Amino acid sequence: MAKPKKQPRPKAITPKGFRDYFGQEVTQRTEMLRAIADVYHRYGFDALESSAVETVEALGKFLPDVDRPNEGVFAWQEVDENDKGDWMALRYDLTAPLARVYAQHRNDLPTPYRRYAMGPVWRNEKPGPGRYRQFYQCDADTVGTASMAADAEICAMLSDTLETVGIPRGDYLVRVNNRKVLNGVLEAMGLGEDATARDNVLRTIDKFDKVGEAGVRELLTKGRLDASGAFIDGVGLSEDQAEICIQFLTTKAMLANAVEFQQDVIKAGKAGTPNAINSAVTENLRRLVQNSAVGLEGVQELEQIAELLERQGYNTDRITLDPSVVRGLGYYTGPVYEAELTFEIFDEKGRKRQFGSVSGGGRYDDLVKRFTGQEVPATGVSIGVDRLLAALREKGRIAAQATGPVVVTVMDRDRMADYQAMVAELRNAGVRAEVYLGNPKNFGNQLKYADKRNSPIAVIEGGDEKANGIVQIKDLILGAKIAESATLEEWKERPSQFEVPRGDLVAKVREILDSQD
Amino acid sequence: MAKPKKQPRPKAITPKGFRDYFGQEVTQRTEMLRAIADVYHRYGFDALESSAVETVEALGKFLPDVDRPNEGVFAWQEVDENDKGDWMALRYDLTAPLARVYAQHRNDLPTPYRRYAMGPVWRNEKPGPGRYRQFYQCDADTVGTASMAADAEICAMLSDTLETVGIPRGDYLVRVNNRKVLNGVLEAMGLGEDATARDNVLRTIDKFDKVGEAGVRELLTKGRLDASGAFIDGVGLSEDQAEICIQFLTTKAMLANAVEFQQDVIKAGKAGTPNAINSAVTENLRRLVQNSAVGLEGVQELEQIAELLERQGYNTDRITLDPSVVRGLGYYTGPVYEAELTFEIFDEKGRKRQFGSVSGGGRYDDLVKRFTGQEVPATGVSIGVDRLLAALREKGRIAAQATGPVVVTVMDRDRMADYQAMVAELRNAGVRAEVYLGNPKNFGNQLKYADKRNSPIAVIEGGDEKANGIVQIKDLILGAKIAESATLEEWKERPSQFEVPRGDLVAKVREILDSQD
Repeated sequence: MAKPKKQPRPKAITPKGFRDYFGQEVTQRTEMLRAIADVYHRYGFDALESSAVETVEALGKFLPDVDRPNEGVFAWQEVDENDKGDWMALRYDLTAPLARVYAQHRNDLPTPYRRYAMGPVWRNEKPGPGRYRQFYQCDADTVGTASMAADAEICAMLSDTLETVGIPRGDYLVRVNNRKVLNGVLEAMGLGEDATARDNVLRTIDKFDKVGEAGVRELLTKGRLDASGAFIDGVGLSEDQAEICIQFLTTKAMLANAVEFQQDVIKAGKAGTPNAINSAVTENLRRLVQNSAVGLEGVQELEQIAELLERQGYNTDRITLDPSVVRGLGYYTGPVYEAELTFEIFDEKGRKRQFGSVSGGGRYDDLVKRFTGQEVPATGVSIGVDRLLAALREKGRIAAQATGPVVVTVMDRDRMADYQAMVAELRNAGVRAEVYLGNPKNFGNQLKYADKRNSPIAVIEGGDEKANGIVQIKDLILGAKIAESATLEEWKERPSQFEVPRGDLVAKVREILDSQD
Repeated sequence: MAKPKKQPRPKAITPKGFRDYFGQEVTQRTEMLRAIADVYHRYGFDALESSAVETVEALGKFLPDVDRPNEGVFAWQEVDENDKGDWMALRYDLTAPLARVYAQHRNDLPTPYRRYAMGPVWRNEKPGPGRYRQFYQCDADTVGTASMAADAEICAMLSDTLETVGIPRGDYLVRVNNRKVLNGVLEAMGLGEDATARDNVLRTIDKFDKVGEAGVRELLTKGRLDASGAFIDGVGLSEDQAEICIQFLTTKAMLANAVEFQQDVIKAGKAGTPNAINSAVTENLRRLVQNSAVGLEGVQELEQIAELLERQGYNTDRITLDPSVVRGLGYYTGPVYEAELTFEIFDEKGRKRQFGSVSGGGRYDDLVKRFTGQEVPATGVSIGVDRLLAALREKGRIAAQATGPVVVTVMDRDRMADYQAMVAELRNAGVRAEVYLGNPKNFGNQLKYADKRNSPIAVIEGGDEKANGIVQIKDLILGAKIAESATLEEWKERPSQFEVPRGDLVAKVREILDSQD
C-alpha cells in the first residue's frame, strides 16, 4: 500500500446527474405524495416500501455472467472472503421489486394484492438537462387478477388522483388502449408472425405525432426524406397494409376532433351519451382487426373497461379510449393507459406546446413468473410526481416561493433568553418563528437575513422597548410593497411597523399574518 | 465471452441485511416523519433532500487511494472510457451530505442555516437481528453559529417533537452534557496531553451503566476480573486521578435520586425552582474541572443552555444536565445531548429494562472545513424514528394492526359494474372501499380475503337483493366478537348482518364504522 500522502481538499459537488432539493421543492413533493397516498389508500391499496437495494439477479434484465452487470443500473459486488460476493444494485423502478416482493411473500399477502409504493429510483444513464439519475416514482399495482375491473379501477383512481393534487377536470385526459388490439391490427396486416416487422411498425406508430399521417404512410412503405434531407428507410409494407394501419391511427385524429364528432353523433341521433365516442372507437377497431382472435379479445376488453368506467360516472371528458397510445415496446400484454395534461405551456424557447404525459401504465403478466414459474396477471400505473409538480408550478397552482418564519431580531445579545421566550410563545400559538442566531452586532445583517429567509415579519425589542414594556413589529411584506410603489402619502397612511405592548406580541403577529394572506 | 446458457430461476429474496416494510409499517412511519417535520418547520428549519449517492471523496472518512474504498459504505466505481471513473457511494448518514451541501451552496443559503432532512441511509456492515443495512434517519442541524442558543433550541425542539409524536412528558428525558467539561476533567486529572489515555478514560466512562462505580474505579486504575473470569487491563491511573473521574460520574447518581435531592434542596431553602438540580450539577462540575480553561468554558456553556431553556419553560423534568452523556468518541466539540425514553419495557427474554436512547446529537465544528478550509460551527440532532415507532407500539399508543377497506363482494360476475358503482359511492363519501377482484366463484374465498385484509365490513348484493332493491351489510368486527364469545341469546339480540335499501348503503356503512371505533 502506498504511504499516506496529504489529501487535497475534497470537491463539494454531487456526482454527475444527481442534485439536491431545497425547502419547498421537498415539502411540496411530500405534500403531493401524501395526497396521492390518500387516494390510493381509499381505493384499498396498501403501502409497500421495499429496500432500495436488490440483488442483480432479482432485478433481472441484467445478466450475472457478464463481468460488470451494471448496464443501466448502479451495481456493485458484495465483498466476501473470496471476493466473490453477490452482485447488488439500486432499484431502477418500483415494478421489478414488486415482482420480487410478491413472489417472496405471496403466501402472506392477500390475492389480489393491491399495493402502492413511492420513492426514489436510480438509473445509470447519461444525465442531460433536466434528466437526473435519481428521481421519484409513485406506483399503484394490482397483482393476481386478470379482471378488466382492475384496469378500469386504476384508470378511475388515476383520474381521481390528478384532480386531488390540483389538476382540474378538462386539464387532463386519461387515454386507454390495448396491446391485443395493436396485435390484432398487425395480424390483419399480415404481420402476425414477423416480429421484426411488427416492432418496426410499432416504432413507426410512435412517430405519428411527429410526422403525421402522410409521413407514417411513407415510413410504413417505401421510406421518406426527413427534414434534414436524409433518407429514412421504409418498413416495406404494401399500400394496402399501410392503409389498415393509417385507419387505425386516424381513430386518434377522430378523437382530436371529438367535439365535432360528438355533435355529428348527436345530430345523427345515434346516441345521447357523451361516451358515444368510445362506442365509435371500438366499432372502428372491430372492423380493423377483422377476424384476428387476439384483436377481437382486445376490443372486448376495451368495451368492458369503457362500460365499467361509464357506470361509475367517468365519462370521456376524463377517461377515453385512444388507439394511438403505445407506451413503449416493453412488457405490456393487454390494456395500456396514459394520463396527459392537455393545457398548453411555453417551452424554454418560448414556443407553445402541450404539457404532455405525466403518468402511464398497463397490464403485464409475466414479471412474477420469472421467480415462480407461474403466470401471475398484474396491472399498474406509475405517476411522474416531479413532472406533475412542474405542471402545477407552471399553472401557478402551487406557490413558487415559500413564506419564511417570523424572525425575532437580537438587539442585546445578553438578553437571548428574552428573545427565545418570544419565539417559544409564537410557536406555541402555531406560528413559525425563530431567533436570529448569527452575529447580532450589525442590525442590517439581521434584516438582510430575514429578507433571504423570505420572512413575513421581524420583531424588534431593544433596551428602550424593554424598559417601556413594548415590542416593535415590522410587516416585511407590506414594507416591501410600500417601498416598491407607494407615494409619500400612502407611506404615511399605511405604516408597516407597529409598536405594541409586549403582552400583545402573539395577537399582533397573528393579525399581520392574516392580513398578508 | 461465454455463450449464453439457460438461466436458473432467480431467488425472490432481498439482499442480506435488507428488508421490506408493509402497510402500516410504512404509513405509521410516514405519519411520524410528517409530525416531526411540522415541529421542525415551526422552529424555522427548512427541508433539504440531498442525493442518496455522493462521491466517496465528498463523504470523507474513506480514502480514494485504496483499491476498494467501500469499508463501511456501499461504493462502486463509475464506468468511463478508461474504466477509471470516480468512486461513488450511498450516504451512510445525513450529516456528511449536509457538510457537502453547505460547502457547495453556502453563497445562496442563509447563515445561520437551519435545515432538516429525513430519509434512508445505508451501512455496509454485518447485519444482525434487528440490525439492517438500510434504515431511516431524521436530522435537524443549525450550521454557521457558535451561539449556545442554537444548542438550547435543538434540545427544546427535541422535547417538543417527542411530545408531538406521542411520548408524554415524564416518559422521556433530554440529557445534556458538554465535551469541553469532559476535557476539563481529563485536564484536571493530568491527562490533558495524553490522547490515548483520554480515549481509554472516555471508553471506560461509557461503561459506567454496566459495571457501576466500583467497576469503573478498578478499570481506571489496576484493572479488573470481568464476569467471565477474564482479566481486563486497567487504564493505569492513580487513585487520586480516578477519584476525580468518579466524582464527575456520581453527579449522574445524584441525578438518579433527583427527587430526594430536590427535597433536600428545598428543605435547605437553597432554591425554590425545580431547576435547582442544574445549578447543583454545574457547581459540582466547576469544582471538578479546577482551573482548566476549556473545562470552565464548558461549564459556562452548560449554564447558558440551562438558563435559556428555563426561561422558555423547559424544566428539568424535560431537559436536564447530565455529565454521564458521552455520545461515542466521534467528532463532537462542545455540547452533546441525548433523548432517552424512561419507561420500562420487557425485552425478548421477558426481563424488564429501560427503553433507552432514541435520539442524540451535539456540536461539531470541523465538518465543513474539510471542503472550504474555514471552520464553520454547527450543531444538530438525529432521531431514530424506527426505535420511536417501536416504543409507541410497545406502549400501545399506535395501532398494531390497520383496519382494512370495506369489501364489496361479487355475487354475479356479470354485474361487476354495479359493484364498482357501490365502491365509487363509498369512496366519494370518504370510506375506504374495494371490490373483490379475485375469482368470485367461491363465496367463502371472498370472506377469507376480507378477513386477511382485516376488513370491517362486507357488502353483499346477489340476484334476489338486486331484484328487491336491497343490499346485505355484514359487520365483520362485531361478527368476529360474537363468534368468539356470545351466548345464543346475545347472538339473536345483536345481529351482525343488516338488510338495507340500496339507497341507504353509504349511510349504513358509515353508521357501522362509527359504532366500531
